[in-house]
Amino acid sequence: MNSFNFYSPTEFVFGKDRENECGKYVKKYGGTKALILYGGGSAVRSGLVGRVKASLEEYSIEYTELGGVQPNPRDDLVYKGIDLCRAEGTDFILAVGGGSVIDTAKAIAIGVPYEGDFWDFYSGKHAEKALPVGTVLTIAAAGSEGSGDSVITKIDGMLKRGTGSDVLRPKFSVLDPALTQTLPAYQTAAGATDIMAHVFERYFTNTKEVEITDRLCEAVLMTMVKEVPRVIADPDNYDARANIMWAGMVAHNNIVGVGRDQDWNSHGIEHELSALYDCAHGAGLAVIMPAWMEFVYKHDVMRFAQAAVRIWGCKMNFADPEATAVEGIHRFRAFLHSIGMPINFEELGAKEEDIPALVDKFGLGDGRTGGFVHLSSDDVAEIYRIAVRAKL
Amino acid sequence: MNSFNFYSPTEFVFGKDRENECGKYVKKYGGTKALILYGGGSAVRSGLVGRVKASLEEYSIEYTELGGVQPNPRDDLVYKGIDLCRAEGTDFILAVGGGSVIDTAKAIAIGVPYEGDFWDFYSGKHAEKALPVGTVLTIAAAGSEGSGDSVITKIDGMLKRGTGSDVLRPKFSVLDPALTQTLPAYQTAAGATDIMAHVFERYFTNTKEVEITDRLCEAVLMTMVKEVPRVIADPDNYDARANIMWAGMVAHNNIVGVGRDQDWNSHGIEHELSALYDCAHGAGLAVIMPAWMEFVYKHDVMRFAQAAVRIWGCKMNFADPEATAVEGIHRFRAFLHSIGMPINFEELGAKEEDIPALVDKFGLGDGRTGGFVHLSSDDVAEIYRIAVRAKL
Repeated sequence: MNSFNFYSPTEFVFGKDRENECGKYVKKYGGTKALILYGGGSAVRSGLVGRVKASLEEYSIEYTELGGVQPNPRDDLVYKGIDLCRAEGTDFILAVGGGSVIDTAKAIAIGVPYEGDFWDFYSGKHAEKALPVGTVLTIAAAGSEGSGDSVITKIDGMLKRGTGSDVLRPKFSVLDPALTQTLPAYQTAAGATDIMAHVFERYFTNTKEVEITDRLCEAVLMTMVKEVPRVIADPDNYDARANIMWAGMVAHNNIVGVGRDQDWNSHGIEHELSALYDCAHGAGLAVIMPAWMEFVYKHDVMRFAQAAVRIWGCKMNFADPEATAVEGIHRFRAFLHSIGMPINFEELGAKEEDIPALVDKFGLGDGRTGGFVHLSSDDVAEIYRIAVRAKL
Repeated sequence: MNSFNFYSPTEFVFGKDRENECGKYVKKYGGTKALILYGGGSAVRSGLVGRVKASLEEYSIEYTELGGVQPNPRDDLVYKGIDLCRAEGTDFILAVGGGSVIDTAKAIAIGVPYEGDFWDFYSGKHAEKALPVGTVLTIAAAGSEGSGDSVITKIDGMLKRGTGSDVLRPKFSVLDPALTQTLPAYQTAAGATDIMAHVFERYFTNTKEVEITDRLCEAVLMTMVKEVPRVIADPDNYDARANIMWAGMVAHNNIVGVGRDQDWNSHGIEHELSALYDCAHGAGLAVIMPAWMEFVYKHDVMRFAQAAVRIWGCKMNFADPEATAVEGIHRFRAFLHSIGMPINFEELGAKEEDIPALVDKFGLGDGRTGGFVHLSSDDVAEIYRIAVRAKL
């Protein structure tokens, strides 16, 4: 096992109707003038933003609001939010939404106290200071509610880039599974795929002797395999939603990933798809991650066989472990298909002829990525091509 | 799943030689005058306390020291520590040791700023204020390095009682698996038993629909089943020690126990044994927990069968699920025996004739406990009697 630091100071406030307490937590963590940030109109129409406002009023917290965060959130709204916070003297950002809203909140939070361009932090600079952020989560997916990470797309060049710092970890996150019951099935499934991908990015590692995190990763994945089909079949299943929501946090606050090298190439390769086609990140991952697995599995057949046996319940083929490894990958793709996710370029709405442009944007040049298998530009192109031809 | 709050703000500093950084973390969390607290002489003789002092000096942190914390730590040293801290103007408690040292540090930490008797907090009062505590852990066992809990024994009446508050969660905890390599096998095994018991206390629940925490609990337990025999056979196995050390934290910071009712009767029943005989808490649990399981399993045969199949790899007996449930309990006891733990009163050094006194001290009277099965005094007596007769 590698050495590591693990720090996850967010207070998680989990359960039905807990968003009605968010004023209490903004106050507890020092907020007096909040910016309420949200996405489309559904958070307003559903009454959620109204309930959040009522809770802030109950604790005498002033607020302004800013809506309009899009999926694959963009830098223009970040600049708008920074200006608004400075004008209003905002001292707390309250994100009401999913990963896009929370990531935007984090970007605003580091931008407000910084004299330069917030994009510096998405170009390699490390954030040391930020306004406090709280969240009211509306979809189990990104894990941003418990992480110090944020991903933003720069409209100029459609560059999708991330940043990470412990100062970006939310002070509190309200996780009410009931808020996710009204999500369309496609969004629920895309979120679930993102959660599973967060775990697989950690699971496929070259670090030896990591039984505890292997088992914790498998625990999250087995939970998803059980619970996701239940919520696709019955969107109102609160308990299955609750299991998925906690799994989504555990998948990405890194408690299951400490002490081991991680991969993250599938996320990088997918980001070019969602930047170009504006597709759901999780849907892009459903297409890319099994393709990545098919490309890399020979690097460590026994690790893929372990995943097949422990997560998917495959029988170990002792005469041909590779067959077991491949069966596990097929099971993953079949699972994604069963919950309504695309499994190839065509189903996603991506085009084979864009592959050179995607690879170019990925920006490796003659270099290689880090991770489980160090990929060249040619390798990335081949992964996209596997994703073109993929079928059940 | 139940509603819950989860808050685990401790920074974990994990890996070989990381204790040499503890000065940096004391400073980071505001300490300027530290009390270094430790147990017997081994922490001094091994050079660990010297390395800790050198690190504090490197960061210009003043310190005093207090040794002599005993296993099943007692109130007399807490009072001594409180007086010392007040006299010295201490603003940070640094515990160098295992659960007993950390629990004593927490007791001192709440006692210093409190005008009354610190024991009030171990008699039901909730702590709202405490000096900051940091830890350098020397045994994987109690989980106190990541929890807000503390257990102290009052010499007058040998009352072993606990308290819990988020203000008692350590600011940082250094987890260096190499520090545990010199532990005697018996202490290693007793610590491992405590870790497994912390998970089982959470696992046996009446709360339905808790797949994510079921799976996370099972992940920790399967890790222990794999790794503990390896360190008993080879004490210097750093990687197995590392897996156990992180498992020990995960087992007790409650990330695997949120959203579900928990039991904790085995811990309570054991506390009377270690209070009376001064045996290792983990050794007492090795005797009590399987006995408790045998007494209660009929309350939910399928949950015990699930444990047997998922943790111990038993084959499900579909014609007789109870046989599977019982097989799982036997596998647990056999495992404890295999790592050198006592499995009955005689092996522990406890006496059947003391059962009435143990039950009396447990203090139920005509009442019942909470938990998975609500126990009466007669039930507790029967669990002790099962522990008298237990054999492989």
